[in-house]
Amino acid sequence: MNPEQPELRDAAVVVRGDRIVALGPRADIDRQYNAARTIPGDGRVLLPGLINGHTHTAMTLFRGMVDDLDLMTWLNHYVFPMEARFVTPEFVRTGTELACWEMIRGGTTTFVDMYFYPDEIAGVVDRCGLRAVVASPHIDYPSPGFAGWEDSFAAATDFVSRWQDRHPRITPAFAPHAPYTVAPAHLQATVEKALAMDAVISMHLAEAPAESAYIEENFATTPVRHVAGLGLYDTRLIAAHMVQLDAEDIALTAAARVGAVHNPTSNMKLGAGVSPVPAMLAAGVNVGLGTDGAASNNDLDMWDEIRMAALLHKMASGDPTALPAGQALAMATRLGAAAIHMGDRIGRLQVGMQADMIQLDVTRTHQLPLYDVSSHLVYVLGSENVQTTIVAGQVLMQDREVLTLDESALRASVHKASNAIRRALDEQQENE
Amino acid sequence: MNPEQPELRDAAVVVRGDRIVALGPRADIDRQYNAARTIPGDGRVLLPGLINGHTHTAMTLFRGMVDDLDLMTWLNHYVFPMEARFVTPEFVRTGTELACWEMIRGGTTTFVDMYFYPDEIAGVVDRCGLRAVVASPHIDYPSPGFAGWEDSFAAATDFVSRWQDRHPRITPAFAPHAPYTVAPAHLQATVEKALAMDAVISMHLAEAPAESAYIEENFATTPVRHVAGLGLYDTRLIAAHMVQLDAEDIALTAAARVGAVHNPTSNMKLGAGVSPVPAMLAAGVNVGLGTDGAASNNDLDMWDEIRMAALLHKMASGDPTALPAGQALAMATRLGAAAIHMGDRIGRLQVGMQADMIQLDVTRTHQLPLYDVSSHLVYVLGSENVQTTIVAGQVLMQDREVLTLDESALRASVHKASNAIRRALDEQQENE
Repeated sequence: MNPEQPELRDAAVVVRGDRIVALGPRADIDRQYNAARTIPGDGRVLLPGLINGHTHTAMTLFRGMVDDLDLMTWLNHYVFPMEARFVTPEFVRTGTELACWEMIRGGTTTFVDMYFYPDEIAGVVDRCGLRAVVASPHIDYPSPGFAGWEDSFAAATDFVSRWQDRHPRITPAFAPHAPYTVAPAHLQATVEKALAMDAVISMHLAEAPAESAYIEENFATTPVRHVAGLGLYDTRLIAAHMVQLDAEDIALTAAARVGAVHNPTSNMKLGAGVSPVPAMLAAGVNVGLGTDGAASNNDLDMWDEIRMAALLHKMASGDPTALPAGQALAMATRLGAAAIHMGDRIGRLQVGMQADMIQLDVTRTHQLPLYDVSSHLVYVLGSENVQTTIVAGQVLMQDREVLTLDESALRASVHKASNAIRRALDEQQENE
Repeated sequence: MNPEQPELRDAAVVVRGDRIVALGPRADIDRQYNAARTIPGDGRVLLPGLINGHTHTAMTLFRGMVDDLDLMTWLNHYVFPMEARFVTPEFVRTGTELACWEMIRGGTTTFVDMYFYPDEIAGVVDRCGLRAVVASPHIDYPSPGFAGWEDSFAAATDFVSRWQDRHPRITPAFAPHAPYTVAPAHLQATVEKALAMDAVISMHLAEAPAESAYIEENFATTPVRHVAGLGLYDTRLIAAHMVQLDAEDIALTAAARVGAVHNPTSNMKLGAGVSPVPAMLAAGVNVGLGTDGAASNNDLDMWDEIRMAALLHKMASGDPTALPAGQALAMATRLGAAAIHMGDRIGRLQVGMQADMIQLDVTRTHQLPLYDVSSHLVYVLGSENVQTTIVAGQVLMQDREVLTLDESALRASVHKASNAIRRALDEQQENE
């Protein structure tokens, strides 16, 4: 994922502390360095860790709770009532741990989260060793822990001020939910605070036709131009979804260096439409990839998103040369890093970058033969091939053993939470 | 996948010889039967084996050879020249073994194949224990082993006559390649032979816009009405792809009980368009699922196709209730069995049916929690969850160990074949 040096064979990478200090042919590296610890790489591909640019981690506990419903039934009859009933700090801790377990096993090393009780999320990130943008949600409606805008925005401001520049792997962020759930004045207030604090903003933008219709009806413009006009495009914005865009929206997004995060599986599952990803890439937009929450996916598997992106845009354009394998991989690494405003630190294997790296086994019989590494990574390999996950020089998983989370304690917490949800679902179905 | 009894918990299945002789609550079965051998099922889901309705197994050796090219460059510069150069009986034996290894590990128990040297394919199917429709290709152009129509059709007729009703797990079939590569008189000759021999026909039909344009220009009709008019709809036809269909084509297909095999990944990767699957299902067409060959997928993973079908048709319709999880699963089992004209024998766990069954592990931490089995199977689980694969009562894989193929011999053969292909690709790239 270094465009100047796309593929090295029989190579070695040297890590000191949290950084890559050298990489090159193995024989040269062996001559120059004396390693305290060596992780073998025979039969493996070493890649920068994957970047999940948009998720709601604790929703892993709602994985597959209900599916195949229309959006409003799904949200109003299931997601919102279940969130109101079950989302507590303990729930968020368990759900985030489950998500981090899944991400470490699948080779995701950085994620952008947007969920309630962000201090709990940050705590789990600190302990499990992953890297994250933790965005504190604020919305004009009641949400777990909050009555509406005033208290949720105050809590977000407090969260960002306490975490900004405090932790090497945690970036706090504002998360105004979406242009149809946050009033213009509130979006402007968010912009002011974010600029004053030099903070990142993560939000849902231009996700679905209903949103565009609402913005058109109320503000006579597109969602992108609506939020750009309110100043959001002057901030370091991470915009998730970006489906309903016209050519002017794309040009504005490129010029403002706003990061766009494409969530192909979620968009397909919810029937939201097809994001104009090839056009955004051609215009120079930094486009990343995300899984969205496990309630609308139903997992946090970035390999599924990489493959889906490569296939979806061939289908949508009728052009089998659209979004080739290498570009889909870049969206999960180099371009994704730029989209979340971390392109100077992660997303590439290069001297000076953070040592966020994964190893994949490419020797399994059912996946043979291997002719082209990028094609193989995108169209054949998957989460189960990830052998080693390293973040900031710390090994989080080696030979598929996760080293930083307690699996049996996690399983017990998940069973407790999911049993309560299952009882509530049964009750609800009996009442209907 | 028995519509009258969709889900049993804490249940047992009794197999005698190649058939299911009883199934029901475990306590009842334990009282009534004394098993010579028991396979435990705690923490596992038992399903009918998956049915891959359209593939070209030996193309596993071309997996990822070249990707992301336009169809004509891909076919004319790579696939056809490489086939002409490399496809021999030995190549087909190795490629088919590799495909069967992958299918056994992923829970596919039956496949419909269409590739050269079908006696080699049948030999591998016999030895590895899978069930297959082995279709012998005939085409108006030169192909491996043949000068054109006359000799390829004679070989197919000979193949079908030698295998028809000879092997409990192998169904021979005719495989006229497609309506744009086989002349009308030749298609009519195929129909005559197939009807006389009561043989199945498998062919590509209505796959891409270029095919529809060719048929419209030359015969002033659609591909479906073209072949129906030539008598193919009076045979037991398995039609692969079925993308470019109008309402009249769908009604004809339903009335004729022609099986339609949907290949979502291949259609997306080649930019072929979106098959009208929900409309076909609503009209009563038996729609199955297939992977197509590994050169255009790039694997034979039916779990990817199940998930992709569920997502693709939500996206194409903008309706998140389209093709719900249970229906996508049925396409890979019960409906797929009907589509390949085996609905009386496979595709359901029911007394009297063939004992083609798979077990999936549903206890892995990163996939918790489990609320709904169908949703979990479609949106969360995958090939790597398959623990046990049984065909006609024979255990082909237990606890992920394949019992009927020699892995080290297979790897050696694959390396030999793929090294030769790799050298040829390198030469070709140097010459370009």
